[in-house]
This record gives sequence, structure tokens and C-alpha cells, in this order.
Amino acid sequence: MSFLDLILGRRLANREFGRSKIGAFEGVPAMGLDGISSSSYGPEAALAILIPLGAASASYMVWIMAPIVALLGILFASYWQTIRAYPNNGGAYIVAKENLGTNASLLAAAALMIDYVLNVAVGISAGVGALVSAVPALHPYILWLCLGVLLLVTLVNLRGTPDAGRIFGVPTYLYIGSFLVILAIGIVKSVMSGGHPQAAVAPAHLGHATEALSIWLVLRAFASGCTAMTGVEAVSNGMSDFRDPPVTQGHRTLCIIVIVLAILLAAIAYLVRAFGIGAMDQTQAGYRSVLSQLAGAVIGNGVFYYIAIGSLLCVLTLSAATSFVGFPRLCRMVAEDGFLPKPFAIAGRRLVFTVGILYLAATAGALLFAFDGITDRLIPLFAIGAFLTFTLSQAGMVVHWRRALADSRSRRERRARQVHYIQYAINAVGAVATSVALIIIVVAKFTEGAWLTVLAIPAVIALLKAIHRHYERLGRALHASGPLTLDNSGPPVLLVAFQNWNKLTENAMRLALTLSPDVLAIHLTHLAGPQAKEHEEKLRDEWRVKVARPAAKAGFTEPRLLILPAEYRAIHEPILKLAHDLEAKFGPRRIVVLIPMLIERHWYQFLMHPQWARQLRTQLLAHGGDRLTVMSVPWYLDQCHNVIGSTLPIRSRSADRNGDVPKHRAVKRHARARRG
Amino acid sequence: MSFLDLILGRRLANREFGRSKIGAFEGVPAMGLDGISSSSYGPEAALAILIPLGAASASYMVWIMAPIVALLGILFASYWQTIRAYPNNGGAYIVAKENLGTNASLLAAAALMIDYVLNVAVGISAGVGALVSAVPALHPYILWLCLGVLLLVTLVNLRGTPDAGRIFGVPTYLYIGSFLVILAIGIVKSVMSGGHPQAAVAPAHLGHATEALSIWLVLRAFASGCTAMTGVEAVSNGMSDFRDPPVTQGHRTLCIIVIVLAILLAAIAYLVRAFGIGAMDQTQAGYRSVLSQLAGAVIGNGVFYYIAIGSLLCVLTLSAATSFVGFPRLCRMVAEDGFLPKPFAIAGRRLVFTVGILYLAATAGALLFAFDGITDRLIPLFAIGAFLTFTLSQAGMVVHWRRALADSRSRRERRARQVHYIQYAINAVGAVATSVALIIIVVAKFTEGAWLTVLAIPAVIALLKAIHRHYERLGRALHASGPLTLDNSGPPVLLVAFQNWNKLTENAMRLALTLSPDVLAIHLTHLAGPQAKEHEEKLRDEWRVKVARPAAKAGFTEPRLLILPAEYRAIHEPILKLAHDLEAKFGPRRIVVLIPMLIERHWYQFLMHPQWARQLRTQLLAHGGDRLTVMSVPWYLDQCHNVIGSTLPIRSRSADRNGDVPKHRAVKRHARARRG
Repeated sequence: MSFLDLILGRRLANREFGRSKIGAFEGVPAMGLDGISSSSYGPEAALAILIPLGAASASYMVWIMAPIVALLGILFASYWQTIRAYPNNGGAYIVAKENLGTNASLLAAAALMIDYVLNVAVGISAGVGALVSAVPALHPYILWLCLGVLLLVTLVNLRGTPDAGRIFGVPTYLYIGSFLVILAIGIVKSVMSGGHPQAAVAPAHLGHATEALSIWLVLRAFASGCTAMTGVEAVSNGMSDFRDPPVTQGHRTLCIIVIVLAILLAAIAYLVRAFGIGAMDQTQAGYRSVLSQLAGAVIGNGVFYYIAIGSLLCVLTLSAATSFVGFPRLCRMVAEDGFLPKPFAIAGRRLVFTVGILYLAATAGALLFAFDGITDRLIPLFAIGAFLTFTLSQAGMVVHWRRALADSRSRRERRARQVHYIQYAINAVGAVATSVALIIIVVAKFTEGAWLTVLAIPAVIALLKAIHRHYERLGRALHASGPLTLDNSGPPVLLVAFQNWNKLTENAMRLALTLSPDVLAIHLTHLAGPQAKEHEEKLRDEWRVKVARPAAKAGFTEPRLLILPAEYRAIHEPILKLAHDLEAKFGPRRIVVLIPMLIERHWYQFLMHPQWARQLRTQLLAHGGDRLTVMSVPWYLDQCHNVIGSTLPIRSRSADRNGDVPKHRAVKRHARARRG
Repeated sequence: MSFLDLILGRRLANREFGRSKIGAFEGVPAMGLDGISSSSYGPEAALAILIPLGAASASYMVWIMAPIVALLGILFASYWQTIRAYPNNGGAYIVAKENLGTNASLLAAAALMIDYVLNVAVGISAGVGALVSAVPALHPYILWLCLGVLLLVTLVNLRGTPDAGRIFGVPTYLYIGSFLVILAIGIVKSVMSGGHPQAAVAPAHLGHATEALSIWLVLRAFASGCTAMTGVEAVSNGMSDFRDPPVTQGHRTLCIIVIVLAILLAAIAYLVRAFGIGAMDQTQAGYRSVLSQLAGAVIGNGVFYYIAIGSLLCVLTLSAATSFVGFPRLCRMVAEDGFLPKPFAIAGRRLVFTVGILYLAATAGALLFAFDGITDRLIPLFAIGAFLTFTLSQAGMVVHWRRALADSRSRRERRARQVHYIQYAINAVGAVATSVALIIIVVAKFTEGAWLTVLAIPAVIALLKAIHRHYERLGRALHASGPLTLDNSGPPVLLVAFQNWNKLTENAMRLALTLSPDVLAIHLTHLAGPQAKEHEEKLRDEWRVKVARPAAKAGFTEPRLLILPAEYRAIHEPILKLAHDLEAKFGPRRIVVLIPMLIERHWYQFLMHPQWARQLRTQLLAHGGDRLTVMSVPWYLDQCHNVIGSTLPIRSRSADRNGDVPKHRAVKRHARARRG
């Protein structure tokens, strides 16, 4: 246990829940890494589409980025409202569920889940890709670097969000700080030189135009640039992690993330034009990213340049961490609604949803493994999920405000109505804008791979619905409507399965005799095969002397011994057959099979014995029918384990010290009632 | 099940044991493959040592092989006697155990086990190596070919010895037949040409001598040539597989194997000299084995040549099969004596010892994998085990006859004494001869790798003894000497662990109330985490209405409801703590925890639910102490599984048809006794 404690931190009690919450300072790295790191690849993606325009591409950038920054502003306003309206969790799933119904919420859930998984795989592989292009010696280890980063991010998130916020804070704030400084210097230089600054290190030469400007090209550049906005929804999904007051903390976090992102995008667009920077072909040798060219042009290749680029690499690589905050929380909500398996809704040792985290890590790891750590081709699939959830979230908010309007109209609150109109308008504009962007992205990227997302989303929804149907069927089957019906059919018939007469069997027989007057001991012969040594007569004698007579003398019904051959060396078949026969004879009474069990403490003891007892238990439970019950009677090789409770694991003892196990007043009352 | 039936054949009942036995015809391929295939590498190994003698090596071969054939004769005579003296199993382990004591038997067991594992790995890789040198295109697939052959041999042996004998019979008899014909033709040619026959295809030219003949060289050649004798002991180890009368069948099998082997060895030695054939360097291109050169020299490279060489390849590759007959049977005997885990002594579906077969396959597979399918370097380790067991077996027989002599002397049976003297003499000569050969082998091969075997044998013996100590300790702890002591402490206290009030819980409560007046139902809150939705009040109301009142009305003691928080989301800790408290209150009475279990039929259902019930059972049994008992009360989602016996697996139904499950007369008697 101490190893797990070391890696993941000690177990947290339920009452420590509040302590594991975060404020805006940890919120920015924990939820903003994805959003902020978008600034590095969004403009680059747009410029890459514009390469055919040659030198003109740099000057068109401002016109591509302007609507994107405007859209970002709209998104900011709408999510600001969503956070206030849904202070516990304002993710697209909840908003869609409450306002648009189940189908819309499942659509949002499917889009988000796919988005989260892709974000992990693409984020890590993009970061590692950038690292490898900086240090080509690492090239053979791309996959291992990717999996290593994935492991790191997974472990940090298994420790809980506060730890993730603290650990990822350093590179995040370093990136924000260094690039804000670089961009500020660049703008000052540009303004002082009248818009034509001298580059410290010249950016790559831009080629001649091979294509004329066309609407299609602009739309494609816009669609690619929209990836700069992914990750903005993370704050609304992670609201449950904020400490009180969550709305204030959420607003602060959202503010920092969006404002930083907007400044970065706007400044990058401006400086790209001022310095005449264009995207380079990634597949060519000597490739430098847009931000690397820009930083070089502004401050040259000094120490500060390397700090900035280093922090950029960290932020890119760790952008996957944002998914680890959102995905488990989303899955938990979906699981609580019965659309995902229940284990997704169980808090682990650090009060995070372990199953969701591990599932995300496994899926992303499988993607990375399948694509050998190079997931460029998955990027087009990526923005669709984000914009689909934007749209659903906004549309849900529109319905939300319309309902609020209808509500306030009936109550004639004029002031509230005015506010709601404004809120309605903001979300309506947001919904229209993001849905237009979504259509553009789907059309522009359809043949590049977006069709895969379009296919995957319905498949995920179908799976979620199938899971839900299973739970509904189970719930109907399990539902007990009336009061408990009791058939006083008398004590059950007890079968004691045993191998030899020893303390194990003795212990089980002692219990059996107190439970029922009908005890039948069963010994199977030739379980080990036709040549096994058998001592039937010796066993019968032993039984007579050591069991039957003492039992009769003590006033119990004499237990009988039944010796059956195990023709096929399978322990459960003769016993199931016998139980079937007894069932017919004894009518409504239950059959209980007692299985003495030797408790093994070490793995090698597990190898030392045929697992007959375990096998018998499993098979009887699987095939016995619901009137056959299996009782495991333990026997310990080490006598120090004889006292109940003396073997509580250490963690439970420490739990005891913490006073978390109550004094069981009801038990004492119960005991008193019996004595009285 | 039908897939397993197809691959391994249907399950065999214990009473079918006799049918799975074999005669001499199947015995030769099943137990003789190793011995007979030795004829191909024994002479080659001796000639390889003699390479430095150049052309003279061929003529010295007769003098190297003569003592080996003589030794083979001595071995034949002694094993003939051993088989008669131990008609059930005359392996070195049994002979050493009965005559030389436990330590000697463990030495024999360790030597044999190592020998068997090495034989599988080396046999397969030698065969595949020969195949690959014939078809160089297969070179990249050596490891996969090795593992494929291993899989084939394993599966065939899992089907049982008769099948192995039948399947491996074709290549075995083809090899014996074709090479006896080739050698006969060669001898006729040689005699007709006055000892200087003309080769059809000339063998490789022998180089000049680079070394003079020395005793050391002769000893090393003898030690290498001794590998020609490995596998002769297989018949004595496999005696239990022969049908009645086993001694006759065993003698026939031994006869065929040894006589064929002796003829092959003698004829090869003669023809090697006649045709002037020497060993070639295996690492050089154009390498041809001695038998390939010999066959070519006698009959040329026609169709018959390819048939003979093809059968030779098969026999070499399949020589591993012999280990699969001996190893599981040896392990079974060692396990029955308590020196190996018990599962080695359990007969599987085809009445062979499945665990031993799988263990052998896994170990040999690991060796092949570790050495990439090229295990040449293991060959020197190989003959030591064989000669150590020869020596121990002979020495054991010497003691056996000495005892018989002492016995017959006291009874003054003159005739018996004379026979015993002869038997004594034969085994004494055998023991001395094989021990001398063993010493020569250890000395000659020590630096080549034999030291590894010398180290491994004591390690295996130490492991066997540790296992024995474990069983002894367990036996002492389990031993129940006196009659059953009964404390009429009254019915146990029942705890019913449940999640919600549903049919699962209802079913368990119904049983609980019939077992004890003290029933306490336990519900844990916040198992899923601090944010889990809880309905404590609703549960208490439901309990009052649906359980407590109906139970009281039906005349049962009212069961109580206890709601405990699971601060650490671990289900077993609060319940263990409660059981500990109850233990203190209720004195000697037992505590039984009832766990309602939803029986899952599909793997995906397993994923759908937190495995709380299973977890609770495991933890309570592991840490609860031996007065806490766990009862699993099953509940089936599919109502068709409600009737006991209706879900017996199909194989059990067919078992029923075969009439192997008896009529349970005792049960009927029991039932009658109750009614009367």
C-alpha cells in the first residue's frame, strides 16, 4: 500500500471532499492548458491553408483571425452566463439534458467524449512531435515519449485536480508570461518602425502565389483556424472542482483563459503580417513553426527564446491534461443517468473518478499505439466535436432563457425580463455563430477525415442507449413492489462438501449442525483421476467415530455421509445433480452448500492447491438456481488470524484513528435489546 | 465446449481409463522418438569431435561406437529387469525412492525434470534447424516454426498417449524402415566390394589431420557419442500407459527401440568407415549432416533419399514428444509424494496430467523464446541428466536385488538366489558403466556448459524440499485428531449487506430470517463517493413498511436496519469493524454475512456493475477470522435459471446419458428417513 500512497498520495475520506477543490490559480493550468495551447496551433493551421497565396498569406491572416477572435468573444459571453446559470456543472451535457432533452444530451456527450479522447492523443503527439523536431536525436523514441507523457499526465490526474493544477502551473504561467512579453516587444517594435519592423532573425522566405484568393480557401483557413478555440468549454465542464463560491472562481478562470487566448491570437495575427511570417511545410527539412519564427523575429535566438519555446513545448505536450479533468466528470454524470456503466460514477482513493481517468488513458494510449505516436491525421476530426458541443450548449441556453422569460412574464418582473432578453440574445447569437462555424468546418474538412467523426458519433450514442436499456431491464427485473413475503418453509437442507476429515471440515460441520437438522456431508471420490488413492472405508469409520456419534451424543440430528464418484473430475456436477434431486424431495426448502475454504495468504499458496473450493462456489452460483445458496467457511493456516478484526488492513486501523468509523450505536442498542 | 472437444477430443470418464492405454505398436512412437532420433545426432556429435583427426576420423568411429553400443546393451538388460520388477512405473524416481531413499529420488527427479525440459527445447530446435538448413527460405521463421511444433506436440499429447502414438507413428516407422533399408544396401555394397564400396554421391572430402590421436580426444568423442543413448529410459517411465500385461508390452517396446537403435548405430559406424565419411563444420555453407552424406553415398539423391531425409527431419523435430509422456507422469508421482504442487497429480479431461504437460510446454517455450529458437548451446547440458538417472536407476536396482537376495537367503530358495545373483550382477555392471560414462561426460563437457546442470540440480532439489515442508506444515495444522467437539452456542448472528431494497435483497432476507432470530441488515452510504445521491429516509421508511412489519406479522424476530457511512468507499472495512464489535458482544456465536449476488451471464455484464459483492466476499474471507462466514445468495436476471439443475452445462447432461452419475441411493434413503 505504501507504494500506491507514494505514487498517488494517501486515501482521502469522503469528508475531505472540500479540501480537494481548487481556485482560479490552479484552475487555469488544470482546465486551461488545452485552450491556451490552442494559440500555438490555431494560427499555424490557418496559415498552412494559405500557403498557396505565397507572401500575401501573412497579410490575409488578420482577416481570418478577426472573426475567430470575435467568435471567441461571443463564446466567452455565453459561457459566462452558463457558468452562472449552472454553478455545479454547466457542461454541454447537463445544459442539453435540462433544456433540449435526452437525445441532444447524448449527442453532446458523444461529441465531448470523442473530443476528449482525440485531444489527449493529438495533444501529446503534437507536443512530442514539436519536441522531436527540435531535438532530432529523440526521433526513434516518439511512441515511448508519447506514452511516457500519457503516463505522467494520468498519474498526476489520479492524484486529483489540485495536484494537477499545481504541477502543471509552472509551464502554463511561464508560457503565458514569456509570450505576452515577446508579443508586447514585437508590437512596440512594429509601431515604432511604422508597421515595418526589422526581424532579429529573419523568418522563412515566402514563395510566390500559386493560387488566387477564393472564398473556398478563406473558408478552409477559417475552419482550420477555429481549432484555436477548442478547450474553451473546459471550465464549464469542471465547475464541480471549484471551491466556494464556484461561480466566482469559474468566472475568474474563464476570464484569464479567454483573455490570454484572445490577446495571443490577436497579437500573433498582427505580428505575422508585420514581420511577413508564413507557415512552412512540416514535411520539409528545416521546418520552423510560426510561433518559433515569430519569437525569433522579435527577440532573436537568445536564452529567452529558448525559455519561451521550451514552455510552449511543455504546454502543448501537457494540453492533454485538460481532458483528464473533463472526461471523468462527464462520464460520471452520464453513468449516473444510466448511460454508462456504474463504475464510472465511483470516486477512487483521491476522490477523482478513477475508472474514467484510466479509461481515457487506455483509449488515448491505444490510439497513440495504433498510429505509432503520429496522430496528425486525427486533427481534422477534432474541431467538430468541440463546435458541436459549443452549439448544443448555446442552443440549450437559448431554451433555458426562453423558459426563464416565460416564467418572468407570468410573474410580471420587468427588470428580470430585460436581463433575460439580453442573455437570450447573447446565447442566440452564440448558437447561430457556432453552428455556422460547425457547418463550415464539417464541409471544409469532410474529405480530410471529418466524415469519421460524423460516423463515430451515432455509434457512440447507440452504445450509450444500449447500456441504458440494459440498466432499465435490470431495474424492472429487480424492482420489488410489495412487502416481503415469507414462506416459513423451515430451515434449509445443508450440504457440506469436503475432501478429508480435518480441522477445515470440522469447523464447517460445527457450523452446519447449528443451522439445520438436515445435514448431509458429501465426499467426492476420484476427483484427481482414475488412479487417485481413495480411502473410502477409513473415511466411513472416521465419520462414524468422530462425527456421527459425538453429534448424536450432543443432541443433534446425526449428519449423514454421502460418497459420490466424480466420474469427470469436475467437482460441481455431482453436487449440482444431488441438489437437483434434493430440491425435488424437500419441496420449498432451500439448499445451502457449505464449502470449507483454506485461506491463502501468499500467491504461491494459490499455486499449491487445486482451486476446487473456488471452482465449486463459482459453478454452483452460476448454475445452481436462486434457491441454492453457497456458504464459504474460512479456515486460516496462521492461527494469529483467528480473532475477527485483528487482521483488518493497516489502512483501516488508521481510518479508525481518524475516527471515521462511527460508534455503531444501533449495534449496541441491538445487543442491549437481546440481553434485555 | 465444442471447440475444446474438437481440438482435444471429448472428455473421458474415469472408467474409460483402460481404453486410453497403449500397446507396443503405439509405444514405439510415443516413447521411442527420443531414443531412435538419437541415432542421427549421436554419431554426428562423436565425429564432430574427431574432425581434427582428418580422414582418419572415419576409421576411428568404430572404436568410439563399440563401447557405446556395448553400454546400450548393458542398459537394455538392466531396464529389462527394471520393467519386470516395477511393472507399474519403473522410472528412476520410483526405483531410487524405494531402494536409495528420499534424497536419491529427489536427485533423480531433478535430473529427469531438467533433462525433459531440455530435450523438448533442444529436440525441436535441432529438428527445425535441420529443416531450415534444407530450406533456407524458412530462416526468418525459426522461432515461429519452433513454437508451432511445440504447440502441435503439446496439443497432440493433451489428447492422450494413444493419439500421440498413432499420430507420430507414421514418421517414426517411415524413418526406421527407410534407414534400415539404406544401411542394409550400404552393407551389402560394402561387403560385395570387399570393404571399399563406390559412393553414389561422393561424401565431403576429409581434410588433413591437424592433431594426433589422444586419450582426451577419445574421451570427449565418447562423451559426445553418449548422447546417442538418451531416451532409452523413457519406456520405464511410461509403464503406467501400457495395457495389460504391461510387462510384456513394455518389454516389446524396449526391445524394438533398443534393437533398432543398436542396429542403426553399429551400421552407421561401419558405413562411415567404409565410405570415409566425416562430420562437416555446421557453421560453414554447404554443410551436410553425416546421415545425409551416408544416405547419398549409398543410394544417391533420388526420391528415396528425400523420403528418408524427410522422415529423419520429422523424427528429429518430434523427438520432443517423448518428454511429454515422461514429464507429466514423473511430476504426478512427485506431487503425490508432496514434493510438487498437488495440481500436477490431477488428471485432466483426457486422463493425462494436464498441468504437467502445460508446464513443460511453457518452460520449453520460454527457453526457445529466450534463445530465439537456437538452443545448440544447451546440448552439452543434456546428457548429464540422462546418465545421472541411468546411474541412479541402476544403483537402486542393485540395492533391490541385494534385498531380494537377503530375503531369499532367509527363505533358503536356492533357485531364486541364483537368478537374483545374475540380476544383481547385470545391474551392478550397468551402474558402474553408466557412472563411469557420467564422470567422463561431466569432466569432458564441464566448461562447455555442463556446470550449469551441476548448479541447477541442487536448486531444483531445494525447491522440491521447500514445497514438501509447506505441505507438511499444512498437514500438521489441519490434522484433526479427536472427535468433533460441539459447542451449542445457538444460531449465528446474521448480517445482510445490501444496496437497495429489491428482489435481490428480498431473496436474501427471506433466507436470513429462517436461519437466525438475530438478523441485522447493513446499508453503506457514500460508497460511490461524497457526492453520491443517498435516500436514507426513503430506505428507512421502506424497511419499516416492506420488511420489519411483515416479518413481525409472520412471527419472526423483527430484523433491524443499520446504515453506516463508507468514509473510504471500501465496502469491507465498516462491515469488518461491525463484525468485530458484534463478536465482542455475542460471545461464542458465529457471525454470518449474507451477500446477495446478481449472477452475471455475459462478460459485458461484468463490466456494468461495481464488483462490490465479490470484493466484500474476498475481503471478509481474507480478513474476517475463522468465526466469520460468508454466504453468497444468488439471484438470476434470466428467470429461466430459477430451477436447480435446469442449467447444468450440456456436458453434464451428456454425462447423465452415459449413466455415470449414480442413482444417489443414500440421498433417497435420507429422504425416506425424513418422511418416515
